[in-house]
Amino acid sequence: MTAPVFDPAFVDRFDTLLHWRRDVRHFSTAPVSDMIVRELLETATLAPSVGNAQPWRFVRVRSLPLRERIAAHVDGVSEDAATRLPDDGRRDRYRALKLHGIREAPELFAVFCDEEPAAGHTLGRTTMPEMLRYSTVMAIHTLWLAARARGIGLGWVSILDPPVVTKLLDVPPHWSLIALLCLGHPLAPSDVPELERRGWQAREPIAARMFER
Amino acid sequence: MTAPVFDPAFVDRFDTLLHWRRDVRHFSTAPVSDMIVRELLETATLAPSVGNAQPWRFVRVRSLPLRERIAAHVDGVSEDAATRLPDDGRRDRYRALKLHGIREAPELFAVFCDEEPAAGHTLGRTTMPEMLRYSTVMAIHTLWLAARARGIGLGWVSILDPPVVTKLLDVPPHWSLIALLCLGHPLAPSDVPELERRGWQAREPIAARMFER
Repeated sequence: MTAPVFDPAFVDRFDTLLHWRRDVRHFSTAPVSDMIVRELLETATLAPSVGNAQPWRFVRVRSLPLRERIAAHVDGVSEDAATRLPDDGRRDRYRALKLHGIREAPELFAVFCDEEPAAGHTLGRTTMPEMLRYSTVMAIHTLWLAARARGIGLGWVSILDPPVVTKLLDVPPHWSLIALLCLGHPLAPSDVPELERRGWQAREPIAARMFER
Repeated sequence: MTAPVFDPAFVDRFDTLLHWRRDVRHFSTAPVSDMIVRELLETATLAPSVGNAQPWRFVRVRSLPLRERIAAHVDGVSEDAATRLPDDGRRDRYRALKLHGIREAPELFAVFCDEEPAAGHTLGRTTMPEMLRYSTVMAIHTLWLAARARGIGLGWVSILDPPVVTKLLDVPPHWSLIALLCLGHPLAPSDVPELERRGWQAREPIAARMFER
């Protein structure tokens, strides 16, 4: 098979995709078709993984009571985080942010990393076991971009206590929770991060993050 | 600004990009232009990051003696890993693999995560500090895909002892090493992972990695 050459128009369009990928918290409750969900998960498996270990484990949360327990937990952790912020305006700004769409999003996924995968034969992770978790993160990011290309938004919720959510989901003990993902149609697509629009944190130039040795 | 709609042709082409993204170990020594390198780093900043903290720090390794010290270290760690593999054929198969192109790739980057970034005001990482490292991983993955779209290959080397490489690169103490990246023109583009072609580990179906609760 001949290797594809991606033309400048594609590179440009891919750049547009990256510009319009958002961490979505405002979802329509309209369902995402099972076909699309399956397609997104298939696409996620194209992500790189250390030793090709494919350590990602996707748990689709279908039980509504379970979803509500997770949402209540996240709200509790978020309120704890608020009280820990300085009372210089930041705490109020934090409380005014919408930080998750767990109750509205039509799909909720928990993504775990299998810390003892059979695949891969330990290659590349003897000195860096965290490579398994990083591989799982790249599968999530792949799913994120593939979703946005289809007009579907994703929100990564990290305001949670991993052991609590792990216990709620009853998974094998050697799985680590990496992410809680809301998936659905975004109410208002944008090319500016919500945290930037709300004055929390803007994007900064790469120059300040680039060094030489 | 109106939100873009990505047509099926783009979705398809993006899928092709994912299929042809490889972990590259065989590089041409031909240089990558400075303009492309800058463009790739700019693109990487479009990655998601927790609280928009943008914790990624890119160190471009330009010193050749430093590069050789890093290469020698990786070779040492790789040989250690080989001796730890069972002598049932796997050890020999491991030794036959080419695991990095540190000496040939025209560009070598070390990517760090700033564990105490000023940006982001701690949002989203109080209970999951690892979100900073995961954000850095997504910047690397963004760079990886942007590079492949331009015909440039990337190889992520994780067969190393992070404290050793960190020390060689003389960075602030609150930076964690996430990745060592080789960047350059791949000698042989492919849509099958090198580890699969060499019989180490093939891709497996998502069905076995998909659960419901």
